[in-house]
Amino acid sequence: MGAQLYAAITALPAPEGVQIVPVDCLSACNTGASVALRAPGRWSYVYGRMTPENAADILAGAEAYARAPDGLVPWRERPVIFRKQSIARIPPLEAPHV
Amino acid sequence: MGAQLYAAITALPAPEGVQIVPVDCLSACNTGASVALRAPGRWSYVYGRMTPENAADILAGAEAYARAPDGLVPWRERPVIFRKQSIARIPPLEAPHV
Repeated sequence: MGAQLYAAITALPAPEGVQIVPVDCLSACNTGASVALRAPGRWSYVYGRMTPENAADILAGAEAYARAPDGLVPWRERPVIFRKQSIARIPPLEAPHV
Repeated sequence: MGAQLYAAITALPAPEGVQIVPVDCLSACNTGASVALRAPGRWSYVYGRMTPENAADILAGAEAYARAPDGLVPWRERPVIFRKQSIARIPPLEAPHV
């Protein structure tokens, strides 16, 4: 399923600043095909239950992440699939303590 | 619940090479209190449904992660809670393509 998702995503043009990288299993087995957003010094995000039909939304969400100076995209500017299908996020090593 | 977990973890001595950092919400709301393991150039891991009683196991798992040269801890050497309660993992930006 991940391979189909990857094919659907890479069939579309990648937004500026976004690099699509196929990776090994994300160990999120209960939540179908998943995608992760990463960039140096930023929070990383994992989203699940993604289908090939979501390819355009995934790229739009990745573009918003790439454009946001700190990777923190305002809630309303995230695609609905990212708002509803978040699996987890991980802070950068440089994150300020709470 | 995260605060209780943090208190239980920091009540124990931190293993060598392990730094415990309280962070903002990991957006893994369906899976209770969660913890993440991170280190430069390594896969990051997120585990959920952690309770204060798991503090010692969490530290043992973090120690194994810190000791493994690449952060990839053999399956049998991971605490059972890490084997069973994985939420997701995210590759380092430097990960080789599949």
